[in-house]
Amino acid sequence: MEWTDILGLVAGICTTVAVVPQIKKAWQTKKVEDVSPVMFSILIIGVFLWTVYGITKKDMPIIVTNGVSLALNGVMLYLMLRYRQK
Amino acid sequence: MEWTDILGLVAGICTTVAVVPQIKKAWQTKKVEDVSPVMFSILIIGVFLWTVYGITKKDMPIIVTNGVSLALNGVMLYLMLRYRQK
Repeated sequence: MEWTDILGLVAGICTTVAVVPQIKKAWQTKKVEDVSPVMFSILIIGVFLWTVYGITKKDMPIIVTNGVSLALNGVMLYLMLRYRQK
Repeated sequence: MEWTDILGLVAGICTTVAVVPQIKKAWQTKKVEDVSPVMFSILIIGVFLWTVYGITKKDMPIIVTNGVSLALNGVMLYLMLRYRQK
């Protein structure tokens, strides 16, 4: 494994798991008022398209990182719909 | 240009510009209480590493999309530090 592979792997882990602290915060406080639902909607479309791109290119790292991102951002969007102010 | 290139391009534009509505919301409301600073810190580390990865691989799309993401997420983190509750 080249050091550039490790660099890409660490970069991919960071951008994939970054949303976890936001999910934790929303889950604990049950407040999402200041979070943009448009941001998460566009992110979900983006990582979905990246996943399709990975499938067409048969590129496993792209499929895995964006597949996980899709799931995590989906959880965040669900929490936002659940906790939003009426 | 292949349709897969267009797919990758649209995917890249989505994941890059997604933070813009969040910046707009924070800018207008001056409230960032429910947004996770840890999320944006990890994102910034991640897109910085992606940019370095792109430079080592001489991959212009990776450099450009992550370079723009780095700047936009930097703006968001700055707004969070500026507007946070004392």
